[in-house]
Amino acid sequence: MLTWADYICRMLSKSQISFIKSLHHKKFRKETQLFLVEGIKSVVEFLNSPYKIKIVYYTDDIDKKFLTLLMQNNISTDLISQQDLQRISALNSSTSVVAIIEMGIHTIDVAYLQGKYSLVVDGVQDPGNMGTIIRTADWFNIHQIICSENCVDVYNPKVVQASMGSLARIPVTYTDLSVMLSQVASLPVYGALLHGQAVYETQFMEQGIILVGNEGNGISLNLQPYITQAITIPKFGKAESLNVAIATSIICSELRRPKG
Amino acid sequence: MLTWADYICRMLSKSQISFIKSLHHKKFRKETQLFLVEGIKSVVEFLNSPYKIKIVYYTDDIDKKFLTLLMQNNISTDLISQQDLQRISALNSSTSVVAIIEMGIHTIDVAYLQGKYSLVVDGVQDPGNMGTIIRTADWFNIHQIICSENCVDVYNPKVVQASMGSLARIPVTYTDLSVMLSQVASLPVYGALLHGQAVYETQFMEQGIILVGNEGNGISLNLQPYITQAITIPKFGKAESLNVAIATSIICSELRRPKG
Repeated sequence: MLTWADYICRMLSKSQISFIKSLHHKKFRKETQLFLVEGIKSVVEFLNSPYKIKIVYYTDDIDKKFLTLLMQNNISTDLISQQDLQRISALNSSTSVVAIIEMGIHTIDVAYLQGKYSLVVDGVQDPGNMGTIIRTADWFNIHQIICSENCVDVYNPKVVQASMGSLARIPVTYTDLSVMLSQVASLPVYGALLHGQAVYETQFMEQGIILVGNEGNGISLNLQPYITQAITIPKFGKAESLNVAIATSIICSELRRPKG
Repeated sequence: MLTWADYICRMLSKSQISFIKSLHHKKFRKETQLFLVEGIKSVVEFLNSPYKIKIVYYTDDIDKKFLTLLMQNNISTDLISQQDLQRISALNSSTSVVAIIEMGIHTIDVAYLQGKYSLVVDGVQDPGNMGTIIRTADWFNIHQIICSENCVDVYNPKVVQASMGSLARIPVTYTDLSVMLSQVASLPVYGALLHGQAVYETQFMEQGIILVGNEGNGISLNLQPYITQAITIPKFGKAESLNVAIATSIICSELRRPKG
């Protein structure tokens, strides 16, 4: 069986392209523990992180400073044609860089949740929403993100893109949330529900968990008993609901907002 | 020249499909002043609005209550095959309804901005961001949205989808923002910039304008002189920036947040 390394050489063959394109799909990302990151800004964020970059494919219009940075960090690079880059890219945007990166291994240590705020995400499906949630959590200094197993894969190229490099900084794990939440009974769990205390009146403790749910259905019924404080964002107009990334961001903003 | 009505009959011909699909593109939406709305929830929102629905295409697995509602409102309908519906849909999501709707004519009356809050959007390109901004503005009772001419078209199917029906309620206009802003000198303009007063400390007046900018470049330099109060969302973590829809939502939340 060929490993990723067998595919790395100067010219992209059909089988190399096919291998890289397989990383557009969750199944192959899981098998190989590799994922794609596109665009210079995002690749630089992963370079400055514990993640290991396997190789960076670039085209000849690349920013030379970026290339020097890669060289200085002993990152393998490969100059390929614009056409080949478009073939391996999972995004429609015009990028000049695609990197193959090794997934980190993130595990949850329940003790590790103490003294901080974590974000628990139940069933979020949309890659753009998930990426935006990661980016926003990074802005508001949320310590880590714990996802239910039916959430979209955070190594999905669209999630990586929307996270704007924040995925390189925030540990994300997948687990059975009911098991996890049952183990952290000492922590307050602030759950975003349609009917709860107005988030503007919520007194957030020093440590805790923010729990947000699926785009259409909210937080699963089996998780709701773990909520110690139901919170809601008051409605002033007529929209039926808020987007989950928007709701998460407003809650995070309220959490960090100076008191008084 | 054929009008839209010539294309409406019981079976979808190639030219009908081609006409409907032309509405995926801004040029033809502008020419015909028609746009597409997909999904029952969104179509119901437009049904309960001043917009005029021309026709609703549906498949045989349609919710009968919805069909009855259309009949009661004398809306033209056409039962088509699942295959045809997929052909005319602009979205990848599985929908069972596509409606053709007439654009409303929204004009800006500067006097109309008085005594309320309006959102002014400069150069937002991403359809998902624009749709989410419209939905969030609707939640927070923002009166209207005024876009620069280089913003994404709000009748783009992806914008319509992300707005979750709120486009049916909030008037959106396109104009030269520097001309518009020069005419409303009596109103405070709160501009979202990287360096400004912390939004948590901002005292919002009774009426005004929230100004937000492009995803990458923020508010255009030529519009910045119209800002009477630069505001910023304080950073607590490490992300370089916030998504524009997220920033807009946090500002709107602060605007509506009860004082004290």
